[in-house]
Amino acid sequence: MSSPTTTVLPLADRLTAAKRASRVLAQATTAQKNRALEAIAVAIVEGADAVIAANERDLVAGREQGISVGLQDRLRLDRGRIDGLAVAVRDVIAIVDPVGQVVRGSNTPDGVKLEQVRVPFGVVGAIYEARPNVTVDIAALAIKSGNAVVLRGGSAAAHSNAVLVGLLRSALESVGLPGDAVQTVDEFGRDGAKQLMNARGLIDVLIPRGSASLIETVVRESTVPVIETGAGVVHVFLDESAELDWAVDIVRNAKVQRPSVCNALETILVHRAAAARVLPAVLGDLREHGVLIHADERASEVFADVVPAVEEDWSTEHMSLELSVRVVDDLDAALEHIDRYSTGHTDAIITNDVVNADRFLAEVDSAVVMVNASTRFTDGAEFGFGAEVGISTQKLHARGPMGLPELTSTKWLVRGSGHTRR
Amino acid sequence: MSSPTTTVLPLADRLTAAKRASRVLAQATTAQKNRALEAIAVAIVEGADAVIAANERDLVAGREQGISVGLQDRLRLDRGRIDGLAVAVRDVIAIVDPVGQVVRGSNTPDGVKLEQVRVPFGVVGAIYEARPNVTVDIAALAIKSGNAVVLRGGSAAAHSNAVLVGLLRSALESVGLPGDAVQTVDEFGRDGAKQLMNARGLIDVLIPRGSASLIETVVRESTVPVIETGAGVVHVFLDESAELDWAVDIVRNAKVQRPSVCNALETILVHRAAAARVLPAVLGDLREHGVLIHADERASEVFADVVPAVEEDWSTEHMSLELSVRVVDDLDAALEHIDRYSTGHTDAIITNDVVNADRFLAEVDSAVVMVNASTRFTDGAEFGFGAEVGISTQKLHARGPMGLPELTSTKWLVRGSGHTRR
Repeated sequence: MSSPTTTVLPLADRLTAAKRASRVLAQATTAQKNRALEAIAVAIVEGADAVIAANERDLVAGREQGISVGLQDRLRLDRGRIDGLAVAVRDVIAIVDPVGQVVRGSNTPDGVKLEQVRVPFGVVGAIYEARPNVTVDIAALAIKSGNAVVLRGGSAAAHSNAVLVGLLRSALESVGLPGDAVQTVDEFGRDGAKQLMNARGLIDVLIPRGSASLIETVVRESTVPVIETGAGVVHVFLDESAELDWAVDIVRNAKVQRPSVCNALETILVHRAAAARVLPAVLGDLREHGVLIHADERASEVFADVVPAVEEDWSTEHMSLELSVRVVDDLDAALEHIDRYSTGHTDAIITNDVVNADRFLAEVDSAVVMVNASTRFTDGAEFGFGAEVGISTQKLHARGPMGLPELTSTKWLVRGSGHTRR
Repeated sequence: MSSPTTTVLPLADRLTAAKRASRVLAQATTAQKNRALEAIAVAIVEGADAVIAANERDLVAGREQGISVGLQDRLRLDRGRIDGLAVAVRDVIAIVDPVGQVVRGSNTPDGVKLEQVRVPFGVVGAIYEARPNVTVDIAALAIKSGNAVVLRGGSAAAHSNAVLVGLLRSALESVGLPGDAVQTVDEFGRDGAKQLMNARGLIDVLIPRGSASLIETVVRESTVPVIETGAGVVHVFLDESAELDWAVDIVRNAKVQRPSVCNALETILVHRAAAARVLPAVLGDLREHGVLIHADERASEVFADVVPAVEEDWSTEHMSLELSVRVVDDLDAALEHIDRYSTGHTDAIITNDVVNADRFLAEVDSAVVMVNASTRFTDGAEFGFGAEVGISTQKLHARGPMGLPELTSTKWLVRGSGHTRR
């Protein structure tokens, strides 16, 4: 099922081919790109049998290597998930194409016309692990934003990804766009990732998705600019004036609704003057939902059904039904704790105090800072972006949930009529 | 004259101190920051004698080491240049403060309020060489945009920079802002640059300014995100329909007005059907202005007063009164040449053909693409930014002339009233 053209080219040639194809994608109209996405949605559903067969080979190999049940689940593609992928691709059709948007413009005093317009990056590289759905997701987003994409999806999903990439390439070609706009470097193993990270001039931006250690490696080793989609050690601070109902509802929602994602709550900080009033209800509710609570001494004085928190807990992203609780003396102590342990993803305060709310919003240096809302709102769909490229925890280029515009750059168009500079 | 606090702290402590100070700068009001800039303008003029004495030591050391006359000129600070620096600092007072600007905002369907606002990066690192004026320029821009700054200005200007940094720090303190917001790591030599490049979490963004090799080193070695302000192998393509007067005026302006800067013209491409018509006037005019012309064979057939161009010329940024000329068969050949040799800074077409103008604008993948205008317009002041941080040749975060907003990041402020995600 895998297209023959995906396997014959050595790595450097694939990058060059992607670069060449990116020039075509960059000039493609929105209508052309949408036709490609529709063809992809059709192709992955029609090719579902082949995808599932390849995926089964990955799963068998994974089980032989003893990968965890959670990892097996992430790796699995069944008919339902493939249908879901096709729906996600069709959702991208509905998103506004950012390419060509005029960001700003003006005339110089002498009448030279300046326009800053959105253009595709060119070639987007993606490095991820054991998530074949990302292959389709990121390719769809890249294509809609006029970019070619080079994928390194990891050995655990290599068979699944090879079939999916073949389908993506054929779908592009079926609408007259270059199949070379989607490339995989999976067969080259670790060397493939290394070469992607050093392909300055061929890859314009690299997006790592996966474990903290994968992201850290890419950030450290890549000479290609990276958009870091980081881990979330996410805090909620229950201020002295926190409304009890809001505290219970928001903490439950932030921790329990989907504990395995990066916007899920990991640490509750609580003002010492509120601890006795709010913690029993907040933590009691969490216990009813099966959450294991790591509490510091002062918190365990007002709620006993806990395990003792250790230093390591404050920097732990549990990603499961566990969380840490600490009593702090005041807002300043909460801000200091967050400054020290937050990964700069999302942090929230529950308060009824305007001054404290404003200070928290101003002083917490995170991508998303919230007052009286669940940290689960940090999400591209919730922000109205239609699709999410990831959640950036870096400060350069993009911060917080990224939509399609974050997969573009800009360029300046300057129009004169013989103008020279004075 | 150098403030004692600039020399006692070891490097890591300076970075930590800068980070701490950045929190204060981030919350400073525009009025406070403007008072600091006024104090800086006053301080460098009042301290001019000390600056000039230190600069003289740098110049003597430089001459002993046999640095070029051009480098000596870049290094020199006299009273006129110091006055000019003070004027530049006061110009920054007049620029709009980007911090706190609302970039966009909306409400979710359930009424959660989302606002994306501009915030300072935090700590900006600058690595540059033998340009003490950059010390003041970049510090003023950083302060106005609410950032702390860590400077590595190179050994050649170490004495000048030490005195300037002392003045900057005192000026900040005189208006109640932390002097620690300006740090130098010059005394630590190459190790200082290395540590800056690896100070993830302490330095938020690194801006190298200087030679291509300096920038290349920083891009390759830095794990801190870099904004690349790159070299300019800048092209003007004289299309078949190029207006002769415009061609002569624009080429002269682009090459001769200030040959040592990155937006100066380096290579003329000319349509073969226009070569005999336009080259004699265009190149004759350049020769009258003392420009040495490296021409390919076909160009030298219509204009003889040249030296033969060699392959290396096409990728050379002369930065002096030299330039390369090549005759190409058509627009496609011009686009291919630019694709291969341009550094992606600025490229222009002189044409009277709408279709060719549009193709050139769409297909040339450079930060600034021009029709019928001088490449010298690629400049922050010309673009109306009030001051220029540099000209970015990368695609991430900023592309083309950078103003103050490019020295900021954003964060999302989310306000609910007990909202949880469905």
